[in-house]
Amino acid sequence: MAASAGPEIERLISLLAKLPGLGPRSARRAALALLKRREQLLVPLAASLAETAEKVVSCSVCGAPDTRDPCAICSDGSRDNGLICVVEEAGALWAMERSGAFRGKYHVLGGLLSALDGVGPEHLRVTELVGRVRGGGVREVVLALPATVDGQTTAHYVAERIAGPDVEITSLARGVPVGGELDWLDDGTIVQALRARRPA
Amino acid sequence: MAASAGPEIERLISLLAKLPGLGPRSARRAALALLKRREQLLVPLAASLAETAEKVVSCSVCGAPDTRDPCAICSDGSRDNGLICVVEEAGALWAMERSGAFRGKYHVLGGLLSALDGVGPEHLRVTELVGRVRGGGVREVVLALPATVDGQTTAHYVAERIAGPDVEITSLARGVPVGGELDWLDDGTIVQALRARRPA
Repeated sequence: MAASAGPEIERLISLLAKLPGLGPRSARRAALALLKRREQLLVPLAASLAETAEKVVSCSVCGAPDTRDPCAICSDGSRDNGLICVVEEAGALWAMERSGAFRGKYHVLGGLLSALDGVGPEHLRVTELVGRVRGGGVREVVLALPATVDGQTTAHYVAERIAGPDVEITSLARGVPVGGELDWLDDGTIVQALRARRPA
Repeated sequence: MAASAGPEIERLISLLAKLPGLGPRSARRAALALLKRREQLLVPLAASLAETAEKVVSCSVCGAPDTRDPCAICSDGSRDNGLICVVEEAGALWAMERSGAFRGKYHVLGGLLSALDGVGPEHLRVTELVGRVRGGGVREVVLALPATVDGQTTAHYVAERIAGPDVEITSLARGVPVGGELDWLDDGTIVQALRARRPA
């Protein structure tokens, strides 16, 4: 496009367009919204990003982003050290925390194995997980990885690496989601829900 | 949600969610992408926003955002001073510039009249436009406002305010867009295209 708005705005638009969920067009709209709401949005967002860049680090134990290391969850003495939930990214960790159902610790892999995207075991935090499990005191590792091909490939690989006599390896149950109508569910989910049926 | 990621990240997510095109969920995904790509995305975006906040101002002549005042277009001596194109926002100005078909100057209103949203003439840069037209030398004002109710209300109002013996007021043509198939066009567009038909 013609650089009618000057290189600064062009650069802002091209950076915004790299965010997931924003394309070139919506990035331009977002830049416009930022310029229109300078004091309410542009200045606070710039400050918030700078603060995040400066203060947020990856927890050296679990890999989750936080302002302290070890992170708030890893330093929480009231949580069960013997139970580790393995997730792909911090987004999954936040979702688990919102559910309020898990009181153990986490381990963030930082991605999934993917031959297509060239992601191998060396790109994930698997060795760190093996170290935590071998370190002792871990009774159970819950694999909370996506129900996709890459997710399941990764789950198999992780399970193999951490397998040992003293540790139980489990994964999240498959079945009909809350509010799920059978009409709208894919066949794979119905097959799994039927196979795992239980007394009503 | 549980503040498992700390207040800094929560604040970043809530600011990102205010951008058009991003909701609470996609803002969380965007924050995650920023944390994952710290050097490639988070740090440059923070710097770009800070630079934009610091350097970009509204042109005192046309209202467009730029790093200099008057803006690059208003200071461009090769463009026709006698021709002013009135747009709602800078986004429309950028779209006109991309088309490469306009070589006059612009005037950014900063919005549209809207009884529902409580936007009155005092919120728009209409008086500034009247001043530019009355200042002399303006032959034609092209109203390039959206083909919506608010857009047309605003166009009528602006036309009334700037009307004078020496200035022609025009608006963008209505009709079938390039690539537009009649099957998929709304009736209003077909009616307008038929009314404005011309020799083939």
